[in-house]
Amino acid sequence: MTFRWTTRIRFIDTDASGRIHYTAIFRYFETAETEFFRSIGVLHAHAEVSFPRVHVECDYRTAILYDDLLEIEVTVGRIGNSSLQLKFRVMKEGIEAARGNVVIASLDKATQRATPIPGHVRAKLEPYVGVNG
Amino acid sequence: MTFRWTTRIRFIDTDASGRIHYTAIFRYFETAETEFFRSIGVLHAHAEVSFPRVHVECDYRTAILYDDLLEIEVTVGRIGNSSLQLKFRVMKEGIEAARGNVVIASLDKATQRATPIPGHVRAKLEPYVGVNG
Amino acid sequence: MTFRWTTRIRFIDTDASGRIHYTAIFRYFETAETEFFRSIGVLHAHAEVSFPRVHVECDYRTAILYDDLLEIEVTVGRIGNSSLQLKFRVMKEGIEAARGNVVIASLDKATQRATPIPGHVRAKLEPYVGVNG
Amino acid sequence: MTFRWTTRIRFIDTDASGRIHYTAIFRYFETAETEFFRSIGVLHAHAEVSFPRVHVECDYRTAILYDDLLEIEVTVGRIGNSSLQLKFRVMKEGIEAARGNVVIASLDKATQRATPIPGHVRAKLEPYVGVNG
Repeated sequence: MTFRWTTRIRFIDTDASGRIHYTAIFRYFETAETEFFRSIGVLHAHAEVSFPRVHVECDYRTAILYDDLLEIEVTVGRIGNSSLQLKFRVMKEGIEAARGNVVIASLDKATQRATPIPGHVRAKLEPYVGVNG
Repeated sequence: MTFRWTTRIRFIDTDASGRIHYTAIFRYFETAETEFFRSIGVLHAHAEVSFPRVHVECDYRTAILYDDLLEIEVTVGRIGNSSLQLKFRVMKEGIEAARGNVVIASLDKATQRATPIPGHVRAKLEPYVGVNG
Repeated sequence: MTFRWTTRIRFIDTDASGRIHYTAIFRYFETAETEFFRSIGVLHAHAEVSFPRVHVECDYRTAILYDDLLEIEVTVGRIGNSSLQLKFRVMKEGIEAARGNVVIASLDKATQRATPIPGHVRAKLEPYVGVNG
Repeated sequence: MTFRWTTRIRFIDTDASGRIHYTAIFRYFETAETEFFRSIGVLHAHAEVSFPRVHVECDYRTAILYDDLLEIEVTVGRIGNSSLQLKFRVMKEGIEAARGNVVIASLDKATQRATPIPGHVRAKLEPYVGVNG
């Protein structure tokens, strides 16, 4: 399964090259992630664990411009004991404009130490483990 | 007295107009504020109070561009019982490029309620109350 | 008339106080403005004029937190010959959480000089001139 | 050779977890890059080529907090015909807090097509090709 989230590129996210500033893509990844988790009933805002990033990367294929309408596809790359990879593809008019992933640790909010991903979260993520790599 | 802090405009703070994105000026105000407080021995990071903004404004006079070297002048506009106005002038090659201010509340970190500005902070701010308005 | 745009506050827009960083409100103002202009058939991306900000301000009334669902109301404050004020109210669960405005100049993209607001833009803005002040 | 640039983490770059928001590290990479290029006499602002990113990544090792004083080390990973890898290590009190790299294309500003890295730029970069990987 793939979660899809549609967004527009905002002016504040452009830079003097006339394109999106490359860091802004991670904002859109984050929002797509939040909406993906909301869609499966896992709310970051109320979770017993926090999800700091331990790795992020992105490849940029084509220029992304102000007001472009993008569709971001979210899948799950792999699920470890206490970490998780999310994959993102950014589609612009049917063309892959960017592709990236983030690796997220599962951290107990109270102890600030790694903790297993809760079972009910894992179960909801598994249908999205894919070959979108 | 006036506190002065010099900075360059970074590429990420520009937008597709080729100029600084207008919101970025507040980033530079914030950094100038932090360095102003550091210069008088008040560290936000360790303060017993937090300082949320209740009002901000800025007037833009001339275009600010990537890599411009700016000098930001900080003065204190007024000091109330539990709030404080800081004033900022942004100088570019001797010309005023922007002018703004922020009104900051003094909030007890534990109770999240307004609290008087600590006396030792007030005493250190008073020399900077000015007519830079 | 009032234009309304609904949005969520994203995690990237929070800061270590646990609230929205105060500058982020201007991102939401900008997006609301873009969608307001789109709704009346004026696309910034294709306009013959650009709209740099000459003044911005905001008053913050209540804490805005991660994942809050906000409704931003947009009205037109006044329309000058070559400038324009937009007003914004940020509603959170029926309460006014923030209120601000931006003054926008009309700038010819080719000459980078002030130019009258095009008549067809002015006509579309006038129904939104209001008393939301 | 290694270029070193020292900076503080600003409040705006934190998030509600109390740490730096992970995307903000790329802002600091960008600034370190600009200052690295300035140090070897190559000014992005005046270059005949622009340098869009085609790949970025970062690994996060330890929490980075508001007001942390960081030293960013910049080296050159590899120099291709029309692309370039820059490597970054973020040191916090002698500990590696993060490590990343960006791959930059050399793009002719007029044609917006890939173009060889100018010879004088290449010559200035070569001393920084290192084993910091």
